[in-house]
Amino acid sequence: MRIGFIGLGAMGAPMAARLVAAGHAVHGFDVRPAAVQALVARGGQAAASARDAASAADLLWLMVVNGEQAESVLFGDGGSAAGLPPGALVVAACTQAPAQAQALAVRLAGGGHVMLDAPVSGGVAGAQAGALTIMCSGPDAALMRARPAFEAVAKRIFHIGTEAGLGSTAKMINQLLCGVHIAAAAEAMHVAECAGVPLATMHEIISVSAGNSWMWGDRGPRMMQDDPPVSSAVDIFVKDLGIVLDQGKRVRQGLPLAAAAMQMFLAASGQGHGAADDSQVIRAYRGLNGKAARKA
Amino acid sequence: MRIGFIGLGAMGAPMAARLVAAGHAVHGFDVRPAAVQALVARGGQAAASARDAASAADLLWLMVVNGEQAESVLFGDGGSAAGLPPGALVVAACTQAPAQAQALAVRLAGGGHVMLDAPVSGGVAGAQAGALTIMCSGPDAALMRARPAFEAVAKRIFHIGTEAGLGSTAKMINQLLCGVHIAAAAEAMHVAECAGVPLATMHEIISVSAGNSWMWGDRGPRMMQDDPPVSSAVDIFVKDLGIVLDQGKRVRQGLPLAAAAMQMFLAASGQGHGAADDSQVIRAYRGLNGKAARKA
Repeated sequence: MRIGFIGLGAMGAPMAARLVAAGHAVHGFDVRPAAVQALVARGGQAAASARDAASAADLLWLMVVNGEQAESVLFGDGGSAAGLPPGALVVAACTQAPAQAQALAVRLAGGGHVMLDAPVSGGVAGAQAGALTIMCSGPDAALMRARPAFEAVAKRIFHIGTEAGLGSTAKMINQLLCGVHIAAAAEAMHVAECAGVPLATMHEIISVSAGNSWMWGDRGPRMMQDDPPVSSAVDIFVKDLGIVLDQGKRVRQGLPLAAAAMQMFLAASGQGHGAADDSQVIRAYRGLNGKAARKA
Repeated sequence: MRIGFIGLGAMGAPMAARLVAAGHAVHGFDVRPAAVQALVARGGQAAASARDAASAADLLWLMVVNGEQAESVLFGDGGSAAGLPPGALVVAACTQAPAQAQALAVRLAGGGHVMLDAPVSGGVAGAQAGALTIMCSGPDAALMRARPAFEAVAKRIFHIGTEAGLGSTAKMINQLLCGVHIAAAAEAMHVAECAGVPLATMHEIISVSAGNSWMWGDRGPRMMQDDPPVSSAVDIFVKDLGIVLDQGKRVRQGLPLAAAAMQMFLAASGQGHGAADDSQVIRAYRGLNGKAARKA
């Protein structure tokens, strides 16, 4: 299959490399020339622009940061949509609001192109291992065409329905839970540190109890560190919970836990910790209650 | 060891039976005579009152519902504390506020008795299997004395510190996370049902994603049912998150996520669902946003 791939970042680069390894002709583009050269070194083709990546593509894969970038890459100056062959399939893999995914699908349909709303989860490690999860919505026939490419990067492919927006909704719901669980872990750790419960013991207890979560296991140990390496930043959840609450506002839906968690990430960011590891949302609790970190 | 055991309910009955099976002389009391007779049928001794259970006991184990009951059983009319032999050890295993556990320990110390603040987790299944987790605080020597009895009912015994209150704090933190995670699961399921994402697919996606939690796995399937069997009721979390927020008020600590989750359990209870399975906190979301349940 001839695949145009736009966005060769931390996620996109290993995904494109796996597509090359699976035998597809991958024409990659990124605003950073070094990222394009890295793909060429792994056997891919360099595209000179987004439109160049799209020309002659059977499938155009967008692994950009958000819905605004996807819109711009497709329909902005020198946009790739104008270069797409008739009947080409667009895979929108960025994290975006369901309403943005729907609008993109409608606009692409106007030009005769089918879109799959197909965000991913699994992080950089999953991308490198070809073990991502794809949460996909769109026509059955489109998924059938995309499946060989999807199988090169994903271990699990969920087809949620035929309408654009459902894939992004599923991803958004995962982000809602991730954001609330990280903030809840911080709230719990903060209660423990204020009460004098040794944090390592607390972490071990919860890990074998009903209060456990994937985030407790992953972020908990980094909450016990003063300045842990950044795996994912506080501001990423300002963005992702922002998508959740914007969508809630759009459809008039109150989401009290997502809203409360958002305030804690916002406060941590406002304290100047937006680029810190997201486990450091615990600093917002320390600020809120006027307590310093207590060592375990 | 001669053990007085007060509170032979869903948790206490199997715990007392396991102590009997481990070879201890267990003198059990409960306000329901049938519960006492059931223990006798399994080889225990019937105590005629709380004070009778305490008399001649090396260890008095309180497996009552809450801190108020523990206080009443020890120091109310015909209270058991007056019947305790000098130097007897009291194990306070009920879920109670850290401040209540501290007060109880101080009052017992005044009478020459040592207390272990030792709430449990693991539920009825864990009690039956002798696989509970005990989160314990109190003097090292007291835990050493209690350990043979603890090992008859628990797979994991955490010694959190020497001060009363730390055990109850650890349990309270677990309940904070459980309550927030159940409400977050309901919020997520509610977004999915309103958007038309099939709930079974949504459950499967999150189960393999970073948004997963123990509660999502356990309560999620019951959220998809209209009237699931009651495993633990909505009002139990009104109580448990109430303990969390009362303690927060006592020590002047804002806990935004616990507070938001509490409102959803309170609202579900106020709608008349207090005795329903706690997964039905999702009904509070349906009421909040004026949406009926949507079938997957």
